[in-house]
Amino acid sequence: MQPEHLTDLIEKVTSPSDGLAANPRVSEVVGRIVKDLFHTIEDLDVTPEEFWSAMDYLRDVGTNNEFGLLAPGLGFEHLLDLRMDEAEHAAGLDGATPRTIEGPLFVPGAPKSKGDARLDDGSDEGDVVFMSGRILSTDGTPIDGAVVDVWHANTRGLYSIFDSDQTPYNLRRKIETGSDGRYAFRSILPSGYACPPNGPTQQLLDQLGRHGNRPAHIHIMVEAPDHRTLTTQINLDGDEYLNDDFAFATREELVAVTVLHDDPADIEARGLTAPFYTIDFDFNLNTSSEAVDFDRVDRARVEAQMVAVV
Amino acid sequence: MQPEHLTDLIEKVTSPSDGLAANPRVSEVVGRIVKDLFHTIEDLDVTPEEFWSAMDYLRDVGTNNEFGLLAPGLGFEHLLDLRMDEAEHAAGLDGATPRTIEGPLFVPGAPKSKGDARLDDGSDEGDVVFMSGRILSTDGTPIDGAVVDVWHANTRGLYSIFDSDQTPYNLRRKIETGSDGRYAFRSILPSGYACPPNGPTQQLLDQLGRHGNRPAHIHIMVEAPDHRTLTTQINLDGDEYLNDDFAFATREELVAVTVLHDDPADIEARGLTAPFYTIDFDFNLNTSSEAVDFDRVDRARVEAQMVAVV
Repeated sequence: MQPEHLTDLIEKVTSPSDGLAANPRVSEVVGRIVKDLFHTIEDLDVTPEEFWSAMDYLRDVGTNNEFGLLAPGLGFEHLLDLRMDEAEHAAGLDGATPRTIEGPLFVPGAPKSKGDARLDDGSDEGDVVFMSGRILSTDGTPIDGAVVDVWHANTRGLYSIFDSDQTPYNLRRKIETGSDGRYAFRSILPSGYACPPNGPTQQLLDQLGRHGNRPAHIHIMVEAPDHRTLTTQINLDGDEYLNDDFAFATREELVAVTVLHDDPADIEARGLTAPFYTIDFDFNLNTSSEAVDFDRVDRARVEAQMVAVV
Repeated sequence: MQPEHLTDLIEKVTSPSDGLAANPRVSEVVGRIVKDLFHTIEDLDVTPEEFWSAMDYLRDVGTNNEFGLLAPGLGFEHLLDLRMDEAEHAAGLDGATPRTIEGPLFVPGAPKSKGDARLDDGSDEGDVVFMSGRILSTDGTPIDGAVVDVWHANTRGLYSIFDSDQTPYNLRRKIETGSDGRYAFRSILPSGYACPPNGPTQQLLDQLGRHGNRPAHIHIMVEAPDHRTLTTQINLDGDEYLNDDFAFATREELVAVTVLHDDPADIEARGLTAPFYTIDFDFNLNTSSEAVDFDRVDRARVEAQMVAVV
């Protein structure tokens, strides 16, 4: 269509009504997005049917509460990570363990303990894992009073709070370090998992010819005085999807070695009856800085109180 | 960030997994939209907080079922109209009454009658209106067997089916023309209305400094043998928002003159006790054509059976 008709309509969409004032930032961002979408419709000759099916699709993403899954699936959450990396680097903050996506399944308020914790409630007969390590500054100094928030899936790839078959906060704990900076926990090895097979995220991935699988991983969020919050994950080596995560979250430095222990004496010493695994992993945090204005990302999260009573 | 990192991530998002195949059209459109959004995030330095608040916003639009309201509010539905006008013009189809947006409140399956109908159930004491005219080809020939689907709001700006205080299909009828091409109906004059004040569409309009009002209008969809379906609206002249519709749907040729009749003899002749209005409006339809591949837009619509029983 006539370029001036397009320009005229774009202009109208972001023009305030008489006597009203716009939020300039919203106007700038929405104006840009609308303009780009108008040009996409024009350039790719998007039909009314295609447009309305896209609106129906977005409605389904909303009613299925999958925007938090679609965003990583389309690379947005990883893009935000890359941008945060860059902002820290530009501010001279380097040397921390790499961040990676939080995902939509973190729930604040997990039970907290000092130094170590057991994460699993014993109901899942997965392989036992003991994970431990230190929370350190980038210069290697142990951090006292760091709080390590750990959350991961069970052997069926499901998370407590979201999975009503699990006890509340199963596989979710906060562990506070002492002066040695050490944390340790016992849990079970999680499985990888896939997007809900009948949900709208997988529906779009199918159209893109993409699988919706994530490799097995353990989420970690570390907060510590005078340090920047680190939101990351460790991946378990050997997973089929280790370098093919649908959410683009794998980072080379975050692949952890899982060591199998099958010596009967070791097993007995741990009070177990089957082989187990250990993971040793240290996390380094950047120091706080005024030069970058984000830290822990402020986003809406599930409130456990609301969900656990279902 | 490094342009190659952005390009690399965009590439990954639309790259099929091993052994899977993409729908090339979805891949093309989604790839373009994702690329543009990545560049918007980069160019406008969109923060993680802003990004996640946008995801929450889209979820709210979905759960409130307002994508059908947001799309016209941001000019998309009018853009689709302009593009359909252009496609018809390019195919040599000119002279029809202009189309304008369908909006989200059409419900198929309204009661049908021949020649004329009464639309209101008598419960709303609005001003009585008699609207009539002819359904014509672009050469002025009356069309026999055209079906005129009419739907409009009541004096509170609400639509039956969506408003449980109204009887099902109140202010919704289908009228079939005879060989003279005439249609006629009695109803009440509708009011203009606004977006739900606490809904997400109005929330965004507030940020853009825009009101969410529509001028009073009557929706018309005409289907006829050998002719292209026309989806349009007529606006009632004199409305405060006549040329300031939040949905950009007013078109000059669609403004109807409402004639007041207050002569006691006229009132008595109609069997009424108060002044009434008339509107005379003819609709011209383009003839069918193989050259344009859309007609009545195929989009998801509310099913009355599902809603009316609430």
